Amino acid sequence: MKKAAALAVLFSVALAAAASGQGKPSPENEVRAVLDAQRTAWNRGDIEGFMAYYWKSDDLTFQSGNARTHGWNDVLARYKKNYPAGTTGVLAFSDLAVGVLGPDSAYVLGRFRLDRGGPPAEGVFTLILRRTPDGWRIVHDHTSSK
Amino acid sequence: MKKAAALAVLFSVALAAAASGQGKPSPENEVRAVLDAQRTAWNRGDIEGFMAYYWKSDDLTFQSGNARTHGWNDVLARYKKNYPAGTTGVLAFSDLAVGVLGPDSAYVLGRFRLDRGGPPAEGVFTLILRRTPDGWRIVHDHTSSK
Repeated sequence: MKKAAALAVLFSVALAAAASGQGKPSPENEVRAVLDAQRTAWNRGDIEGFMAYYWKSDDLTFQSGNARTHGWNDVLARYKKNYPAGTTGVLAFSDLAVGVLGPDSAYVLGRFRLDRGGPPAEGVFTLILRRTPDGWRIVHDHTSSK
Repeated sequence: MKKAAALAVLFSVALAAAASGQGKPSPENEVRAVLDAQRTAWNRGDIEGFMAYYWKSDDLTFQSGNARTHGWNDVLARYKKNYPAGTTGVLAFSDLAVGVLGPDSAYVLGRFRLDRGGPPAEGVFTLILRRTPDGWRIVHDHTSSK
């Protein structure tokens, strides 16, 4: 019985290792970590830190309302224009759902709430991320509110 | 010289076959065909035909404004409520850009214009598609307008 119990334990460990990819975080957890890091950067007023998780490419795209913005530099300029220093407020995400499309691509749906004093801004977003040599990066963002 | 010319022709044919994946349409072209088929269905007032290209799953998601809708049935119900029979109007897409994430997943950005008489509705959308045994299907749609 002892041997059977030991084997059962070994088998469970093997299963857990297989499930976790031998200790490697799953794409879902890696992608959630990106959003955590973005929120943390935003909430210390660090727009560049927030932008570090967007693909630094002219092919980055951002859609909001009825407009599309192209390229990392223009997306950064948009954020800086809309949120001058000291007005970034407090950002929170909720209802996050991650869809893994493959080992190197995923999307995230979520809600945001941005409190800058007065009625908070609220809306939903869709992010598409790809794994790059530097880690997961947002290649497309679509954000909308009422 | 005749032989050289014949070889050149053969080589060109081989190159063209390689470029086209031996005659198979590219993911980009397949995805564009889905949007063409959707537009055609919509413009004959056929919401079910339009919806045929959405993943028929409870995990289909649709975001618009600041709301998220879950599941194929609820997305169909939303379209039917917003566009009763005879009010679907004329739909056009523009500025389509396809991002291929892998052999079986892609995203599309685009603008829509829906003319139902009066000022047309205009906005942007992000679609995420996966290749299923039935063909490419939209697994997530995010649509917004001003």
